[in-house]
Amino acid sequence: MSERVDVEQHRADVAELLAELADRPTEEVSIHRGVLGRVLARDVTAPVPLPRFRNSQMDGFAVRAADVAPAGPGAPVTLPVVGDVAAAPGEPAPLEPGTAVRIMTGAPVPDGADTVVPVEDTDHVTFNGVHDDSSAASAKVEVVRGREPGEFVREPGSDVAEGAVVLRAGTVLAPHHVAAAAACGLTRLTVRAPVSVAVVSTGSELVAPDGEPGPGQVWDANGPALAAAVRAAGGRVGLRLSVPDDPEIVRMGLERAAALCDVVLTTGGVSQGAYEVVKDALPEITFRSVAMQPGGPQGLGRVAGTPVLAFPGNPVSAQVSFVVFLRDILRQAGGLPPVEGVPAVLDAAVTSPDGKRQLLRGSWVGDAAAGARVAVVGGPGSHLVASMAAADVLIDVPAAATTLDEGAEVATWPL
Amino acid sequence: MSERVDVEQHRADVAELLAELADRPTEEVSIHRGVLGRVLARDVTAPVPLPRFRNSQMDGFAVRAADVAPAGPGAPVTLPVVGDVAAAPGEPAPLEPGTAVRIMTGAPVPDGADTVVPVEDTDHVTFNGVHDDSSAASAKVEVVRGREPGEFVREPGSDVAEGAVVLRAGTVLAPHHVAAAAACGLTRLTVRAPVSVAVVSTGSELVAPDGEPGPGQVWDANGPALAAAVRAAGGRVGLRLSVPDDPEIVRMGLERAAALCDVVLTTGGVSQGAYEVVKDALPEITFRSVAMQPGGPQGLGRVAGTPVLAFPGNPVSAQVSFVVFLRDILRQAGGLPPVEGVPAVLDAAVTSPDGKRQLLRGSWVGDAAAGARVAVVGGPGSHLVASMAAADVLIDVPAAATTLDEGAEVATWPL
Repeated sequence: MSERVDVEQHRADVAELLAELADRPTEEVSIHRGVLGRVLARDVTAPVPLPRFRNSQMDGFAVRAADVAPAGPGAPVTLPVVGDVAAAPGEPAPLEPGTAVRIMTGAPVPDGADTVVPVEDTDHVTFNGVHDDSSAASAKVEVVRGREPGEFVREPGSDVAEGAVVLRAGTVLAPHHVAAAAACGLTRLTVRAPVSVAVVSTGSELVAPDGEPGPGQVWDANGPALAAAVRAAGGRVGLRLSVPDDPEIVRMGLERAAALCDVVLTTGGVSQGAYEVVKDALPEITFRSVAMQPGGPQGLGRVAGTPVLAFPGNPVSAQVSFVVFLRDILRQAGGLPPVEGVPAVLDAAVTSPDGKRQLLRGSWVGDAAAGARVAVVGGPGSHLVASMAAADVLIDVPAAATTLDEGAEVATWPL
Repeated sequence: MSERVDVEQHRADVAELLAELADRPTEEVSIHRGVLGRVLARDVTAPVPLPRFRNSQMDGFAVRAADVAPAGPGAPVTLPVVGDVAAAPGEPAPLEPGTAVRIMTGAPVPDGADTVVPVEDTDHVTFNGVHDDSSAASAKVEVVRGREPGEFVREPGSDVAEGAVVLRAGTVLAPHHVAAAAACGLTRLTVRAPVSVAVVSTGSELVAPDGEPGPGQVWDANGPALAAAVRAAGGRVGLRLSVPDDPEIVRMGLERAAALCDVVLTTGGVSQGAYEVVKDALPEITFRSVAMQPGGPQGLGRVAGTPVLAFPGNPVSAQVSFVVFLRDILRQAGGLPPVEGVPAVLDAAVTSPDGKRQLLRGSWVGDAAAGARVAVVGGPGSHLVASMAAADVLIDVPAAATTLDEGAEVATWPL
């Protein structure tokens, strides 16, 4: 008879087995491709100050503050406009005292100028479509409001100083982080390498989903589903195999998987039948019965030094096992937060076997939110893979509960 | 002076301009690659029933229910075990009355058998590692509990009937949907085509983020950031251009973009300066001042029949414009739900210009949740692209508010 443990004990044992995954290597990604959702491995410092150079915050006139200080309503100060500075390559000439240059947002503020008068505080109103009017006869500006030194001037480093941290280690990269990296001229970022997982389906009855099953054969749902689950949890599928119920072939496959990947995940061959090939092939790992339904038969241990989790082969059991035992570990190893459970209220009473934690498939009744109602979909059968597709969550029925009434509060695991 | 509108008016006008995006073409994706997060374009029906054939739910013995009906505690029924059925290719021989075959979970139930007695209700206890004992001298089984016809037999179609809907149009594909598709032998799914967006940065001062800026030049943050934002919203970047402040070049670029993509997005050249190249290049679209900060200057219209949105060039303004005006439209065109705002409480008082809706950058104080506290990060300056990287949300300060006290409730837009 195999060892019996509860769900929390098995979760703890899996976490201990996989603790080594927390120490991830790093890799570089381009900000242009595949960067979203990746997790920064270390702080990113600004290689330059931002802004890099003193520039104008407004469309207006760069002047010396002292020259326009007296300006006020009814007492304009008029200055000659001696030039035009656009946001464009090049360095403007220094500004002579008592003069102004027309300047555009983002353009470098000339040496000698220490403030910018916005166009709306002058007699120009708007520049739109008015190119080069600084060279025309009208090359003067009336300023109607005085300015302090520094107004509407963006100083170098006022956004971020050179060498200061602009993106923190652990950041889950989103578009606004890409913006900051690009603004600093950084096109490659160092992120945590995803955990590489081998997904190994066992069972002589399995046919690839694009194959043609004969009598007694079924399409392999676990391989594609767990590969997708690994990716959804931020992992990488390092190898996918489907192997028949032959312990030697399984052993060879698993040793290859162990050599290539950080974790090996198997499905099938862990139950009480006569042909439990994973049990036969891996005498060195622990097989046990976890007090849960579905997903009771579980294995864990190491093959050739690499952690192995052996999930049952029923497709619902395999998916529930992934959610309960591996999903958050993969996410956290990659730097992602765990998936938060959502408390919910049962839409109808449920019954449950005593002493087994049951994970029913549930769907939201109305909008998903903490405290929302959740209804059971499909039956408890662990082969109901199509029914499971209609589920939004797993409903967590405690081991001690044999019935839960309508309106009972339950924990859920989002799918 | 350009037209002035409020944020909701501009949102409504953008939504009307882009209404045509709702009618998406479809494309096929493989369940093995790039399927997560895609949205099913139509209902998927099961091409076969699941299970495809009658099979056993347990490791046990396939029998005729009538033969074991009398069995009970202390009154076992003994049957000869005449064979062994594994979950493997092939069709088992029909079962003769008065006999049993050993059967494994998932194995086809022989014709003639109508129930399965679990191994734990027999004298065999467990099959583990016991191959072929049906041919040994011990080839009999004592059954200690009678069964009804159909118990522990999975009938064909009991999960899903042939032709029934297994995945609904509009489903955002997750691993458990992949499982159902694979179980039905479906490797390709028809999903909505993402909206193809051209991202066009304008400005002579721009240098690509991997380039070396000279005096007056800055790295282009908007191109990479908006490309990432398009992808994060489920869209596809159909073209990326960076063009100088030359109306003819801009016009050529935008016409090419309009021919290739569903939507054209420009940054820069829409303000009140002298060199507003998007205004100069696109006389046929509407430019207006939206009562918001940042992101006030906006343009919208069509070039060569294709919708164009013209965002301001300051990187914070461009990103805020995307979040407020385009993100949800792209998501919904692709079949994704809009990003839900989260009500929050201000961690400190803020001031805001009268008559302008202000979108401050905010970060969560503690855990993000409805009603959580949010603090302003960075200043209001629309050039503070590095500071924005520290933000989690945009804090939405209503146009009429000039001050909001600490503890005031605000809406937020997650970044």
